Amino acid sequence: MGRTLHQLIADFARFGATDDGGVCRLTGSLDDKAARDQLAEEMAARGLTLVVDPIGNMFGVARLAAASGEAVLVGSHLDSQRTGGRYDGVYGVLAGLLATEAVLARAAKHPGMARRNLVLVNWTNEEGARFQPSLTGSSVFAGTLAAEVACSLTDGNGVTLGEALEAIGYCGTASLGMEPVHYVELHVEQGPRLEEAGAEIGIVPSAWAARKLSIVFSGEASHTGPTPMPQRRDALRGAARAIDILYDEVEREPLGVHASAARIDVAPNSPNVVPARVQVWFEIRHEDEAVTGIVGDRFLQRVTAACAPIGIALEIAIDERRSPARLDPAGADLIYEVTADLGLTAIPLKTIAGHDALAVQKRAPASLIFVPSRGGLSHNAREFTDEAALDKGLAVLSETLWRMVTMPV
Amino acid sequence: MGRTLHQLIADFARFGATDDGGVCRLTGSLDDKAARDQLAEEMAARGLTLVVDPIGNMFGVARLAAASGEAVLVGSHLDSQRTGGRYDGVYGVLAGLLATEAVLARAAKHPGMARRNLVLVNWTNEEGARFQPSLTGSSVFAGTLAAEVACSLTDGNGVTLGEALEAIGYCGTASLGMEPVHYVELHVEQGPRLEEAGAEIGIVPSAWAARKLSIVFSGEASHTGPTPMPQRRDALRGAARAIDILYDEVEREPLGVHASAARIDVAPNSPNVVPARVQVWFEIRHEDEAVTGIVGDRFLQRVTAACAPIGIALEIAIDERRSPARLDPAGADLIYEVTADLGLTAIPLKTIAGHDALAVQKRAPASLIFVPSRGGLSHNAREFTDEAALDKGLAVLSETLWRMVTMPV
Repeated sequence: MGRTLHQLIADFARFGATDDGGVCRLTGSLDDKAARDQLAEEMAARGLTLVVDPIGNMFGVARLAAASGEAVLVGSHLDSQRTGGRYDGVYGVLAGLLATEAVLARAAKHPGMARRNLVLVNWTNEEGARFQPSLTGSSVFAGTLAAEVACSLTDGNGVTLGEALEAIGYCGTASLGMEPVHYVELHVEQGPRLEEAGAEIGIVPSAWAARKLSIVFSGEASHTGPTPMPQRRDALRGAARAIDILYDEVEREPLGVHASAARIDVAPNSPNVVPARVQVWFEIRHEDEAVTGIVGDRFLQRVTAACAPIGIALEIAIDERRSPARLDPAGADLIYEVTADLGLTAIPLKTIAGHDALAVQKRAPASLIFVPSRGGLSHNAREFTDEAALDKGLAVLSETLWRMVTMPV
Repeated sequence: MGRTLHQLIADFARFGATDDGGVCRLTGSLDDKAARDQLAEEMAARGLTLVVDPIGNMFGVARLAAASGEAVLVGSHLDSQRTGGRYDGVYGVLAGLLATEAVLARAAKHPGMARRNLVLVNWTNEEGARFQPSLTGSSVFAGTLAAEVACSLTDGNGVTLGEALEAIGYCGTASLGMEPVHYVELHVEQGPRLEEAGAEIGIVPSAWAARKLSIVFSGEASHTGPTPMPQRRDALRGAARAIDILYDEVEREPLGVHASAARIDVAPNSPNVVPARVQVWFEIRHEDEAVTGIVGDRFLQRVTAACAPIGIALEIAIDERRSPARLDPAGADLIYEVTADLGLTAIPLKTIAGHDALAVQKRAPASLIFVPSRGGLSHNAREFTDEAALDKGLAVLSETLWRMVTMPV
């Protein structure tokens, strides 16, 4: 209590701190537990009642209107990438905590004005760094992913998400038990566009489309020494060709596609054995879903043609198409009003990254607010947003939440 | 006792048996322990005295000439690749066991003929699948690798070779205590040349040269979504270019180079983070060392040029040059005589793969004998040599060892 947002962020950066000043706080790790325990303490100190559901989502309930079954939700996530920064996710949770504290104080001064309750949320496994797919807790909350399926996701060592949550004491049995009428998430941008535009606040109308392809390249194990070159069927050689083709496909036409190949699993991954099986996770993102489809199809055609002559067979393990989800327009209008009232500059900004707000939107109206990110750097220890910019986001969030819990409809 | 070589091989294939009929018996694993324990039993049953040295090499000593301080050594290795076959290494150990039994029986019928002792050896970690570098036990024996350095090699989970050997009870304190005057190793070819030539026995005069390069590609972690494409420094993209360049370099001129890129480590290896650091292990092999040098240099030049424009820095972590080691010419001559006396067809065959005999040669004269390998397939569950071919190798080995332990000089 009494600490500034900046101090709280520095405090939470201790959990999973890395040597380079960043954070590695994987879902279900002891560092995740430490951060969750601290959040539970902060909630209790502010009079919030903690509810933990079966996928480990933490809800801190502020009972502003005892008679109401409705709630406005605010939050983000405490988990990080292995190479995470100090702001991604945790900023939205801690700003949500202080905003909830402010709304509680304001409601106490104006009895009877709050028409519904306010709930601070920490969603489980937003990042998808340890368990894939990402946005796990928010998808379970939205009803688009069954809790049992989510709990059975396994990490690289065969540990399930359910076991990992059980081990740290965050596999709950409760549910929120309130009707979510709105969800608001505050986040650092993770790209350079606000900074380039010189704007203070980004209001997100919708997300880019994404096509996520995971391809298995199958060759045959053999000795890297005596096996004649024409006889080899080298799965890693096929994968390398595919990675090269992806970037070539993105660069040949200036469509503005974002693409990546960021995870690779190789078997047996021994210096003396020609790789038999390689799986690569590819992403193709664009605001227009049709573009992700066309680029993905062209990519697959070229990879198939490039792998056939070297004896590599392809199997598409995942072909997930994320449509360009729209967030709540009424919520965005309200946030524009708030920024204008506070004298801040706001611009619309589509999100390229996935966020819990996109998952929650499938169940309840959701809003996403960005503040600038220096150089657009994220998933990196050097991720940075200055204190003034962080506080502007908090001001917008506090006022938005007050209006949402007090407005008639 | 009383089992044929074929039966013994089938028996040992149980230790680390994989579903596809192959073997995964990594150094220091429980399967390695089970195979070692069984070998110790087989040694004891034949009257051999077991000596285990600090790097876990197992010596089964047959005291044929009590007054002699000299020994002829025979053997190979029980460890395998993850995708190992049933013959690689274990064939040489088990044929060595039966050959030693035969020599003992013959010596008993001809008292006084044996002038020196015979020792069966199982070398630790020939494959280098779990701990790199390979040829570990034989290099320690040869004095080219310090036992303390070898014991401190770590696997992917941070376990040291010393700890792994200790855990399975094979970190000894003894030493052989005899002068090795010759080492003979029998092995499956692991390439198709004997089969193609229609020969029964390959006698190895020397090894190909190898240049082993491990390169670290350094980029920067960032979000795979919003990070603008020109701003990304993707280490995996650099590595993919390098793999492509390696094969292009090998195929552009028909020099007969063998090359591979078979191990890759990626950090952080998350689908949502642009890879920051990638290490790839490359091999370039040719009978002429100058060719491996030239091809390696050209490869490095092209990779450097290809990585600079995408912001990837290179660091050469390993640049190991293995000269084309010669094995003992007198030993080879003796084996030619033996094959001729037994009516078998033998041809000279340079080894492309590394073998313990190449490491031992640095301390004592060493010989390497090949039998055919069907289709040249190795480090693969489908590795196969038929029973008749295996027995011909055993006959050559038994007679060679008899002549070596009885000959005057």
